[in-house]
Amino acid sequence: MSEAPQTAKVVFQPSGRRGTFPIGTPLLDAARSLGVYVESVCGGRGICGRCQVQVSEGAFAKEALTSSAEHLGDESEAEARYRSLRNMRADRRLSCQAKILGDLVVDVPTDAQTNRQVVRKRAEAKAITPKSSISLVTVTLAEPDMETPRGDADRLREAVRDKIGRDQLSNDFITIDPFLLPEIQKLLRQGKWCVTAAVHHDGDAPASIVALWPGEKTTVYGLAVDIGSTTIAAHLCDLATGRTVSSAGTSNPQIRFGEDLMSRVSYVQMNPARLPDLTRTVREAINALIGKLAADVGAERTDILDAAFVGNPVMHHLFLGIDPVELGGAPFALAVSDALHLKGRDLDLEMNPGAQIYMLPCIAGHVGADAAAATLAEAPGSSDEITLLVDVGTNAEIVLGNRERLLAASSPTGPAFEGAEISSGQRAAPGAIERIRIDRNTLEPRYKVIGLDEWSDEEGFAGKIDQVGVTGICGSGIIEAVAEMFLCGLITEDGVIDGATAARTPRIVATGRTFSYSIATDGIEIAIQQTDIRAIQLAKAALYAGVKLLQDKLGTNRIDRIRLAGAFGSYIDPSYAMVLGLIPDCPLDGVSGVGNAAGTGARMALLNSDHRREVEKTVRDIEKIETALEPKFQEHFVNAMALPNKVDPFEHLRAAMSLPERREPPGDSGTPRRRRRRQS
Amino acid sequence: MSEAPQTAKVVFQPSGRRGTFPIGTPLLDAARSLGVYVESVCGGRGICGRCQVQVSEGAFAKEALTSSAEHLGDESEAEARYRSLRNMRADRRLSCQAKILGDLVVDVPTDAQTNRQVVRKRAEAKAITPKSSISLVTVTLAEPDMETPRGDADRLREAVRDKIGRDQLSNDFITIDPFLLPEIQKLLRQGKWCVTAAVHHDGDAPASIVALWPGEKTTVYGLAVDIGSTTIAAHLCDLATGRTVSSAGTSNPQIRFGEDLMSRVSYVQMNPARLPDLTRTVREAINALIGKLAADVGAERTDILDAAFVGNPVMHHLFLGIDPVELGGAPFALAVSDALHLKGRDLDLEMNPGAQIYMLPCIAGHVGADAAAATLAEAPGSSDEITLLVDVGTNAEIVLGNRERLLAASSPTGPAFEGAEISSGQRAAPGAIERIRIDRNTLEPRYKVIGLDEWSDEEGFAGKIDQVGVTGICGSGIIEAVAEMFLCGLITEDGVIDGATAARTPRIVATGRTFSYSIATDGIEIAIQQTDIRAIQLAKAALYAGVKLLQDKLGTNRIDRIRLAGAFGSYIDPSYAMVLGLIPDCPLDGVSGVGNAAGTGARMALLNSDHRREVEKTVRDIEKIETALEPKFQEHFVNAMALPNKVDPFEHLRAAMSLPERREPPGDSGTPRRRRRRQS
Repeated sequence: MSEAPQTAKVVFQPSGRRGTFPIGTPLLDAARSLGVYVESVCGGRGICGRCQVQVSEGAFAKEALTSSAEHLGDESEAEARYRSLRNMRADRRLSCQAKILGDLVVDVPTDAQTNRQVVRKRAEAKAITPKSSISLVTVTLAEPDMETPRGDADRLREAVRDKIGRDQLSNDFITIDPFLLPEIQKLLRQGKWCVTAAVHHDGDAPASIVALWPGEKTTVYGLAVDIGSTTIAAHLCDLATGRTVSSAGTSNPQIRFGEDLMSRVSYVQMNPARLPDLTRTVREAINALIGKLAADVGAERTDILDAAFVGNPVMHHLFLGIDPVELGGAPFALAVSDALHLKGRDLDLEMNPGAQIYMLPCIAGHVGADAAAATLAEAPGSSDEITLLVDVGTNAEIVLGNRERLLAASSPTGPAFEGAEISSGQRAAPGAIERIRIDRNTLEPRYKVIGLDEWSDEEGFAGKIDQVGVTGICGSGIIEAVAEMFLCGLITEDGVIDGATAARTPRIVATGRTFSYSIATDGIEIAIQQTDIRAIQLAKAALYAGVKLLQDKLGTNRIDRIRLAGAFGSYIDPSYAMVLGLIPDCPLDGVSGVGNAAGTGARMALLNSDHRREVEKTVRDIEKIETALEPKFQEHFVNAMALPNKVDPFEHLRAAMSLPERREPPGDSGTPRRRRRRQS
Repeated sequence: MSEAPQTAKVVFQPSGRRGTFPIGTPLLDAARSLGVYVESVCGGRGICGRCQVQVSEGAFAKEALTSSAEHLGDESEAEARYRSLRNMRADRRLSCQAKILGDLVVDVPTDAQTNRQVVRKRAEAKAITPKSSISLVTVTLAEPDMETPRGDADRLREAVRDKIGRDQLSNDFITIDPFLLPEIQKLLRQGKWCVTAAVHHDGDAPASIVALWPGEKTTVYGLAVDIGSTTIAAHLCDLATGRTVSSAGTSNPQIRFGEDLMSRVSYVQMNPARLPDLTRTVREAINALIGKLAADVGAERTDILDAAFVGNPVMHHLFLGIDPVELGGAPFALAVSDALHLKGRDLDLEMNPGAQIYMLPCIAGHVGADAAAATLAEAPGSSDEITLLVDVGTNAEIVLGNRERLLAASSPTGPAFEGAEISSGQRAAPGAIERIRIDRNTLEPRYKVIGLDEWSDEEGFAGKIDQVGVTGICGSGIIEAVAEMFLCGLITEDGVIDGATAARTPRIVATGRTFSYSIATDGIEIAIQQTDIRAIQLAKAALYAGVKLLQDKLGTNRIDRIRLAGAFGSYIDPSYAMVLGLIPDCPLDGVSGVGNAAGTGARMALLNSDHRREVEKTVRDIEKIETALEPKFQEHFVNAMALPNKVDPFEHLRAAMSLPERREPPGDSGTPRRRRRRQS
């Protein structure tokens, strides 16, 4: 071993901020220097306990560090006193007391975050015709008599079958969930021989009684959940009316094991014994959401009888307790792709013990059940128009086609669109710049920050900005910044910041051989670096090349509609996305964000079993294109590095707004290399 | 409260011996005075630890006592030392140290019993054509490729389906047990894409992959279990060949909660919170048997993929965790009667986690899955001959009929046939008199004791009897004793011990207004009391009246064959049973014991799914007669109190042996009252 290092790396989650600090730095100071908000009201004396944090242990390949709770040193006296007095959890530390002694990944628990991430998922307004696979059947049984000594459970099964009507059942048979057997006699007698059974009947499996209440019961609920890498969104729906009665979201707590999908896969690869932790963590978060949703409407957890889940393949596998490592490398083999029928209790979900779970099918190794759900919601296959459906994330999921033919692919965009790998980037949270405009003449920026209604040049902004601070730039902000810089001539079509413009504005600053554009300098410096533009170019080129490949397969350049799904899609301005060449040319009014289409698809599958058959058929029929196998990907990718594109004319866009004249690049724009899927 | 009692009642299980002792009596002394064998090699100094016992707590209605661990007082110093040194279980006490301070039910754990009950259940020789609902299918999958991104689990399901042949499946669909999902990719890669799947396919439910091994696997096992109130017998069978590879039995540890069925029901009724204990206890005993059977053949627990269970309704319900109280009173409503398909893990059984459980159907509230299994094994419904199938226990289960019509009933015989409620009675265990002959002239008895080959008048008996002692008389012994006493004129046809015979032998002794016959006086006095004969008369009359009712329903007195099932049936001499009028008249060579017919039926259902459909159909079709509802029961019962019967001629019997002349009773024979089902 060489001598002990003098500095250590620290990554704060869920914000993802990171820095290098001298050994011995108090953790709270490190957090503050990075703009990570950790509450503290006692002045760092170890009294208030608000600054609690938790170390995520293990080897983190992406960060190239091994985090250990021991790297926070021993407890101070104050900390030990607080722990014993207030019963602080064993895995928590007070960040005002703990000192950095080695590399760390530190989770700021949700309960300690006041400037927590904005969970931008809500139930879209779409109305869904209910046809639940759960039905409530109230029956009254005759009292048992000795002449016909049949089990109460069997008489119940038959009464329920007769009430439903044998012709409504796929076979003349109805089963009963074994966990109910010890309850049946009690419930029948409690209800004076009248009980309500929840009957599950979906597809080919025999119908089954999965829950039972004495007397009459009229309302039961179902849950539609979209497990995103960053956020989990859940909707509680009345299974009879189809109405969404409550929605809630939360950060995906797995973030402390890795910010993006592939870092989590690599975390499991390097710390295989920790797989159950990732699974437990996400299930606990969902259980907390279930509790909240039920409380919202005054329901019991046991009133929840059904659930539909969507998520990308890695989230899907981790939720099921499946090791996702195969998804981390070619051939990206899914452990399971078809739709699954499970029981809530198999997944430790705190709902009715008889609750059913429907996992929507995954399309391919990088095109998950979330993409399948979005496809169900947007139904590109039911129209003659050619629709492009894009869900932008670490991997963009792309579906293209119409009634005749549907194609799907994913493209490795990386996390740049989510503000990661961007020097001033951060996730969408209060303090993040989400919109930006640059004056064409003065080259001065004005911007809007999440958490404040006013733009930076409007009255009131200055007085309020101290509440949240300007902490970074999020995905939609970076898109607009690059597009605006291009539109006002600060960068060329090849994405190079033009050093000549430094003569026109002091905001263009030389940094080594390249230049940067400074947006804000109060507190934390926020600037767009040449490397940031490269990261955006690489991401958008990957996405665009994927779309082009699908267009090649479909044999047409025509696109009638573009649907941008996901939180990101809802917040980016379609015209800026097109200026950037992130999406292909198309009539501008044909482009729209469709919000949480995956969540909508999950609700459809929850509420109507016909939609389950529909999404299963769509996923079976859809043509899966593996972009990595296509020889033309590289050519499309290189052309797509330019703004908006080296070869594609973007006629609709040019008709709608004036783009800068095409010029020769002022220097070496670099040869973009073929990107590989992110595997750290 | 009145002043503290000076004596306390103690019941030892599993022997069922009981007595009343002065407060302060050492428990070991009490055991010895009752002939309950508790090992002790250290002379009662609390050193050897062999005399460990366990208190069964709760209210015991039948014994009219409330047992508590506190009634053994505080630990002695020696006991505390032994506990800490040897890590004695918290619920165990040393009986040499513990003193009786109050009423107690004490369990002598199996590991401490040397003269434990003889478990007389073994697999009968019957060969069974195998057609298991579990099949092993070895498939080799192509490696995953990016062009067809399908989940490994789904490709496996399809390969297995294609290998079996779609036409062999009830629908074009095969599911996979969710617990396998996290294992599939590992196992496929471990087996280099070759794996063996265990496929469960039984009845209407879709076929399902329930277990998986890398590479080839050729042998898996199934378990057939007969859960009796007294003993549990289990057989391990090769599912492919149908061969029984190992058998084992154990006492049913529930005995410490009540000796017979109805005392256990009443225990649960009075101590409802203890229901899980009864369930856990029997499952643990079965898990121990599974371990033993697997070890016998060098197999793993995970090699056991299927199991069939039979038991009377109370055992059936307790095993499933169902409160049996409804079975304790009219209308004796079963919670569930139809056959059940469950998973081993639902019942905490330690087998392969994907193992299937088949519970045979129950016929009625007192005619259980054991009777259904015996009916399957003996197939009375497949012959033109009229068969009477009787399984004698606390309730005799009776099936009568032939190809055209089958009837079933139970009769409340009570536990007299098992040696309970008999003054010198005990269960079949070493030291119990199991056979007896009385000289027609001298009226001297000679007898055979379990554990010794010699009869009491043979050479060698005297030298060996000290090893086991003569401790009581078991079920087959009491039958023979009463029959012999009748045949040699010691009792009248009305069952009264004839006091006049006291002139001929000193063994007839007046005890109050009645007489008794003394069999042995060395050590414990063993005698047949008038009350013992009454108990046998009541039991046999109940059984006979039940048979008569079924004969009435069937409209014939003809019986071609009698099959006596169960341990008891194997050990009683048919001619003595007929002399007693326990079974109806029939050609003597038509009567035979069929051993553990319920166990045979369980094996048939385990090994061949056609037999499952068969037993389900039989149970559906069989006519259930509730003897309690039949007006003629009383008349048949009164007639059956006489030996062999007041009205029935017993022509076959009289042709085979000479019965005593019919005489008038010497005194009041008592009017037998209609017996109620034993419900304490």
